[in-house]
Amino acid sequence: MRIKILIRLKSQILEPQGKVIEHSLNNLGFNEFNNIRQGKLIELDLPDNLSKEEKDQKIDSACKKLLVNDIIEEYEVLG
Amino acid sequence: MRIKILIRLKSQILEPQGKVIEHSLNNLGFNEFNNIRQGKLIELDLPDNLSKEEKDQKIDSACKKLLVNDIIEEYEVLG
Repeated sequence: MRIKILIRLKSQILEPQGKVIEHSLNNLGFNEFNNIRQGKLIELDLPDNLSKEEKDQKIDSACKKLLVNDIIEEYEVLG
Repeated sequence: MRIKILIRLKSQILEPQGKVIEHSLNNLGFNEFNNIRQGKLIELDLPDNLSKEEKDQKIDSACKKLLVNDIIEEYEVLG
């Protein structure tokens, strides 16, 4: 199965790249786009025969050990 | 409404950062994680009073004009 992990800075942390994108979009006339923040997307394959619990446990463990800086980032798993 | 735009390199394009993550995860004992690719996540607010068509049209236009390099990247809109 293909898994998507969305990693974003916590909301109280300044994310300058999103501000740059927002400014550029506004300059192009896209004034409805607000509160833009950029994060990371990590996509990966896990074996189909894993149970949901095994899958969740492995992903959480990988996030905590390598992928996510828990101090400033949070993550969301899709699929 | 909060929109997520997932931007990834097209599958035929080499994505070295994902290979580095995969190697690191394998070294940590996560051998089930395969075909890892890193991409970008852009999250933004759009006004709730937009219709689905207006929303889709604005997002597609912003992606084509600024956010996505159509030659090497593809995008997916969630929410």
